[in-house]
Amino acid sequence: MAEEVSNKQVILKNYVIGYPKESDMEIKNSTIKLKVPEGSKAVVVKNLYLSCDPYMRSRMRKMEGSYVESFTPGSPITGYGVAKVLESGDPNFQKGDLVWGMTGWEEYSIITPTQTLFKIHDKDVPLSYYTGILGMPGMTAYAGFHEVCSPKKGETVFVSAASGAVGQLVGQFAKMLGCYVVGSAGSKEKVDLLKSKFGFDEAFNYKEEQDLNAALKRYFPDGIDIYFENVGGKMLDAVLLNMKLHGRIAVCGMISQYNLEQTEGVHNLFCLITKRIRMEGFIVFDYYHLYPKYLEMVLPQIKAGKVVYVEDVADGLESAPSALVGLFSGRNIGKQVVIVSRE
Amino acid sequence: MAEEVSNKQVILKNYVIGYPKESDMEIKNSTIKLKVPEGSKAVVVKNLYLSCDPYMRSRMRKMEGSYVESFTPGSPITGYGVAKVLESGDPNFQKGDLVWGMTGWEEYSIITPTQTLFKIHDKDVPLSYYTGILGMPGMTAYAGFHEVCSPKKGETVFVSAASGAVGQLVGQFAKMLGCYVVGSAGSKEKVDLLKSKFGFDEAFNYKEEQDLNAALKRYFPDGIDIYFENVGGKMLDAVLLNMKLHGRIAVCGMISQYNLEQTEGVHNLFCLITKRIRMEGFIVFDYYHLYPKYLEMVLPQIKAGKVVYVEDVADGLESAPSALVGLFSGRNIGKQVVIVSRE
Repeated sequence: MAEEVSNKQVILKNYVIGYPKESDMEIKNSTIKLKVPEGSKAVVVKNLYLSCDPYMRSRMRKMEGSYVESFTPGSPITGYGVAKVLESGDPNFQKGDLVWGMTGWEEYSIITPTQTLFKIHDKDVPLSYYTGILGMPGMTAYAGFHEVCSPKKGETVFVSAASGAVGQLVGQFAKMLGCYVVGSAGSKEKVDLLKSKFGFDEAFNYKEEQDLNAALKRYFPDGIDIYFENVGGKMLDAVLLNMKLHGRIAVCGMISQYNLEQTEGVHNLFCLITKRIRMEGFIVFDYYHLYPKYLEMVLPQIKAGKVVYVEDVADGLESAPSALVGLFSGRNIGKQVVIVSRE
Repeated sequence: MAEEVSNKQVILKNYVIGYPKESDMEIKNSTIKLKVPEGSKAVVVKNLYLSCDPYMRSRMRKMEGSYVESFTPGSPITGYGVAKVLESGDPNFQKGDLVWGMTGWEEYSIITPTQTLFKIHDKDVPLSYYTGILGMPGMTAYAGFHEVCSPKKGETVFVSAASGAVGQLVGQFAKMLGCYVVGSAGSKEKVDLLKSKFGFDEAFNYKEEQDLNAALKRYFPDGIDIYFENVGGKMLDAVLLNMKLHGRIAVCGMISQYNLEQTEGVHNLFCLITKRIRMEGFIVFDYYHLYPKYLEMVLPQIKAGKVVYVEDVADGLESAPSALVGLFSGRNIGKQVVIVSRE
């Protein structure tokens, strides 16, 4: 008989309307047998780091036909994480391997299917980075910027939610290419970080701007070539007015809209015509074939200190609901991670 | 001394707010010397056919930095037309040439610069076609569909304002490629035309649909690959909900919004992400280098009766204000043309 151990879990109590609250989740003590089920190719893992990501909001409501499935009320939340393999029914993974991919918000998980798991080879970096710069958000920034935005040296780039898990990297990748980069964020601390830590040319606190259009005109007197869209709503409307001819908008997220029962309308889409703008939504799933190429680029940059990554780390599974909820008020500074266990 | 002749003109009295009215324009009797000004490379033309196009609405307001200039209140409206050269200061044009391009809403015009004029070589087709299928709207349909939509045989295509100058051609080009094509229009007569004359697979009257989303689901149970956008607003919102993964939206116009002081907001842009949609605005100006290729394709199709074109012809310059205003209530059936003179 396999050892049965206690397994703390973060349960979504019910589908959420409006802004999610900590009380939409609960911590539950369960038990788990640390054993691959008979005949299964599952892997049994111990979860180390969990990732709080904005797209998870959409999974908190009942949806049909979306690109991700809704969470199941009464069951643990699932999401990206870093985990250690305890036992494997899949020949691609061995006991002791470190992996990142879709796992459960709990101490131990039985993961099946295993196709979404990536084996971690390079451990000379903080393991938590595999929830961020070396995981889904990193690939999102890389693919979104390089594949969707068609950037060229010298172009002007605007990034919203710029200190977040993805935004801080888009800005750094754009600087590496020789672009002029401006970011927006929601606090003085974040704005300072953009300029002092991530090397953005300029940054502003959107909450302090009466007129976003005027703010963008101040930083982009000749217009914006590339907008990396993380927020939607009013910011998108202001950006549309400030795009250059043949500008590109990579639509990565629209976090300002996720908790609204009625989204804000976007009024300036006519600019797409007059300025011949390409606006393109993307999802990182479609770009994971580029992951090895991305690692090859980014790992040496990290080790050389040329690309930096700021994380906001919450300690313990009990702090996970608060960490997740905090994303939607912008409480986190940098990538929001939850430590379940350090090893 | 050159002959001075009377020259009836259509004058824009003032910038227009809201829906344009006939009374925003006036017919004025002026005079003109039919002579190329000394030292100028202008051409003097007699206007034959004038084109009423939705984009002209934007020129009726004061704008800065748009892709077209505002009209000048007190001066004749300008727009695309077909004209006969009476005298030329440009060696590329000779007396007697037929041309199409930017001209004035008047009997005679002195056109300078002449770079926007195309010489008409094939006269075995109705000359008015050079304001439509063989002119700007034809190139718009061709470039918008083939260059912006990246269409493939078998894909599903939706066209709004489908019986209009551009829409009727997009539908026919899509059918030629082997697509499934549905169009929307604003009257039973137009809907009948789409099916009986232009070969659309299906068509519907958007004014009779309580729920545009439901209407689109009825005609596209598996979703829309390509949307050729002519109207904007609520239709765009409904389309976004019905796009397929990796769908494409070519944004040609948003006529439903042109006369509103506050445009309708578009609420479903989040679908751009979940469905990885590319939405791209375009303007025909960028594609005129393809005009010879387009003529080579479309002229034989017209002569063989395989591509048809429906025009709504208003007779006489006096009828031009009413014809132009009619565009914005959808009064025209097909391409709206004004005959100034038949030769």
